[in-house]
Amino acid sequence: MRLALHQARKGIGRTSPNPCVGAVVVQDDDTVVSRGYHKKAGTPHAEVHALRKAGSRAEGATIYVTLEPCNHTGRTPPCSHAVAAAGIKRVVVGMVDPNPLVSGSGISYLRKQGIEVLSGVLENECKEVNLPFVKHITTGKPFVVMKAGMSLDGKLSYQKGVPGKMTGAKSRRTVHGLRNSMDAILVGVGTVIADNPSLTTRLVKCGRDPLRVVLDSSLRISSQAKILHLDSSASTLIFCSPVADRDKKELLGKMDGVNVQSVALDETGRGLDMNRVLDHLGKMGICSLLVEGGAEIHGSFLSKSLVDRVMLFVAPLFGGSSGTPLLSGFPVSDNTSAPRLQNIHYKKCGEDVLVRGDFFTTL
Amino acid sequence: MRLALHQARKGIGRTSPNPCVGAVVVQDDDTVVSRGYHKKAGTPHAEVHALRKAGSRAEGATIYVTLEPCNHTGRTPPCSHAVAAAGIKRVVVGMVDPNPLVSGSGISYLRKQGIEVLSGVLENECKEVNLPFVKHITTGKPFVVMKAGMSLDGKLSYQKGVPGKMTGAKSRRTVHGLRNSMDAILVGVGTVIADNPSLTTRLVKCGRDPLRVVLDSSLRISSQAKILHLDSSASTLIFCSPVADRDKKELLGKMDGVNVQSVALDETGRGLDMNRVLDHLGKMGICSLLVEGGAEIHGSFLSKSLVDRVMLFVAPLFGGSSGTPLLSGFPVSDNTSAPRLQNIHYKKCGEDVLVRGDFFTTL
Repeated sequence: MRLALHQARKGIGRTSPNPCVGAVVVQDDDTVVSRGYHKKAGTPHAEVHALRKAGSRAEGATIYVTLEPCNHTGRTPPCSHAVAAAGIKRVVVGMVDPNPLVSGSGISYLRKQGIEVLSGVLENECKEVNLPFVKHITTGKPFVVMKAGMSLDGKLSYQKGVPGKMTGAKSRRTVHGLRNSMDAILVGVGTVIADNPSLTTRLVKCGRDPLRVVLDSSLRISSQAKILHLDSSASTLIFCSPVADRDKKELLGKMDGVNVQSVALDETGRGLDMNRVLDHLGKMGICSLLVEGGAEIHGSFLSKSLVDRVMLFVAPLFGGSSGTPLLSGFPVSDNTSAPRLQNIHYKKCGEDVLVRGDFFTTL
Repeated sequence: MRLALHQARKGIGRTSPNPCVGAVVVQDDDTVVSRGYHKKAGTPHAEVHALRKAGSRAEGATIYVTLEPCNHTGRTPPCSHAVAAAGIKRVVVGMVDPNPLVSGSGISYLRKQGIEVLSGVLENECKEVNLPFVKHITTGKPFVVMKAGMSLDGKLSYQKGVPGKMTGAKSRRTVHGLRNSMDAILVGVGTVIADNPSLTTRLVKCGRDPLRVVLDSSLRISSQAKILHLDSSASTLIFCSPVADRDKKELLGKMDGVNVQSVALDETGRGLDMNRVLDHLGKMGICSLLVEGGAEIHGSFLSKSLVDRVMLFVAPLFGGSSGTPLLSGFPVSDNTSAPRLQNIHYKKCGEDVLVRGDFFTTL
C-alpha cells in the first residue's frame, strides 16, 4: 500500500475533480508486477494502468489500490469490472470511496465476484492524499488551505501596504511546491495592488500554474497588473460584485486568459459572499484552493469558518508594531470562541518553521 | 562532567551573583567518590562540598568541575588551594571563569602545583548553565529573557486591556518553573493594571519567588494591587521617574516588602532609561531577569537591543484583530533591520509550542 500511495501522490494537483489514486499489482511471492496512477480526469484510472501493464500476470494476483475501485461508468468504464475480468484474486483497499455514486458498491461488486477484499489499510494516509477530493465530493466546495509567510509576532509586512520580505528561500521554494499541488490560488485585490504578484508556480521542473482567483468587489485591479499579463497555461478569474463598474468588467473580460464573474454580496453588504465564491469554484471542478491573503481575506475566511487547513511559514524575526497583522476585520471575544487548530505540526523550513494545523477532525 | 552539570543545575536561580557550579570527585577506577554544588552566595563552593565529603579519598583522585576553581579570597578561601591541599591529581574543567578576578588564574595555580588540568569539557553545556553569571560579570547587567504567551497570530489578548487566556496548563506550569529559575521578573504598570498579577512562583514543591520589578514612571499602580500585598519571601521593586508624585512614592515605599526607586528618563523623555534600570538591578546582584510584558515593555526592550533570549509560548489558536499585539511602540522598517533570533528551538509544550531563540551568538 505504501508503494500504491507513492503512485497516488504523483497525481496530486493534476486529477481534479477526480481523486488521486495509485495501484500496485503484486504476486503471491510478493513480486511487484506493475504499478499505475490516475493522471488526469477523463483518462484511465490507476487500476486500469496497473492491470494493462500486468497483462496475464494479473491472474491470481493481489491488487493494492489506495481508493475503492469505481463501480459506475463515467468517462471510463467501471474499474471493479476490469479488476474482476483480469483475474485478480484479492483486492486490498486503502479507503472507501466517499463519492455517493460509489461508496462501497465497488467493494460489494468485487466480493460478489468471489474476490477477497480487505479495506482500511493505511486509511489515514490514503485520506490525507485525497482531502481535496473528499471535501469537494461531499460538500461541492474546494478544500481551503490558508497560507501565510509571517514574523514571530504575526506580521505579514513591516509597514502597512509596503511589501517586505519575511521568510527565507527554503520557505519560498516550499510555497511554489504547494502552489504546484493546488488547483487554484486566491488573493484579495489589496494584495494585488500592494505586491503586484504573479501567483505562478516557479519550480525548476514539473511546475504547472494553478488557476488564479482575485476577490475584487469593485474591480479596483489595475489593467496593468502582472497577474493579467502572464505567459501561463492557467487563467485568472476575478470575482466582483453585481454593481461593479460595467466598462471595467468588459475591459478585463476581453483580456487574454482573464475571466470576470459577478457574485452576490454577503449579509453585511460589504464583502463578496464567500460561500458563493467557493460553490462557484467547486462547480468549475476546483477541489483545492490556496488562500494567500492578505489580512482581510484571511480574517474573512476564518470568521466564516471556511478554512480547512492552515499553513504558516514563520520567520525567526520580529516584524514590529507598524506591520500588517495576519488577520484584519476579525475580532475574537475570548478563548472559547477563538478558532483553534487540530493536528498541529511544526516543521523546520530552512531558518523558518512551518506550522500546519487543521480545522477538521475528520472530513 | 555530566554528573557535575547535574549538580550545577541544582543551584540555578539560587546562587546569584555567584555562578552555578557542580563538582564530582572520581577515583582512577571511575568510582564516584563524592558530589557537591554551590548552593548560595557566601556559602562554600561546589569543590569544597565535594572535597569535604570525599575526605582522604580525594587523594590521587580526579575532580570534575563545571567552572574553573576560583583563585582569590572572597567570602570563602580560594578553591584552587583547597583542591591542591586535598591531594587531587587531575582537574577536569568545563569552562574557564569569565570573572576578571579569576580568568585562568585558578588553572595556572593548579598547574604550578603539578596538577594535571584539562579544560573545555562540555564547555557549551557549562556555559548554558551560567549564561546569567557570564552576562552579569562581564557587563554588570542581568541576562534578560523576554517571555510571552500568545496566539498564532501574535496576540497577547483577545481584546485590548482585557485579560484573556491564550496558552494551556502545561505552558503555565513551565512559566512557573522559569520564574523559579530567575532572580527577578519585570512587568510594566499597564500589565499590573490590566491583569493584576501576583508574579509569584506557583509550583508544587521547591518554588521560591523572584524579586518583582514594575516599571511605572508616573506611579499609576493602585495601592490595592495584588503585587503589593503578597505573602512572599521576595519583595517588589517599583521604578519611577524622578518627577513622579512624591506622596504616592512615600506611601508605596512604606508598604511591607515594597521599594520604590527613581531612575532618569531615556533620551525621548517619555520612558524610563532601561539601561539604568538594568544597571541598578545588576548592582543589586540580579543576574537574570524575566521580562513578562506587556506589549510596550517588550517593544521597548527589543528596540533598545536589551533582550538576550526570547521564550514565546504559542497557543494553536487565533487571537483575532482586536487583541493586543506582542509588540507596541517598536516599528521595524525592513528585513535587514528586523531583530532576528539565533539558535532557534521549537518544543511542544502541551498543546502549545515553546519557541526559544537568542540574540547573542556567544556571550
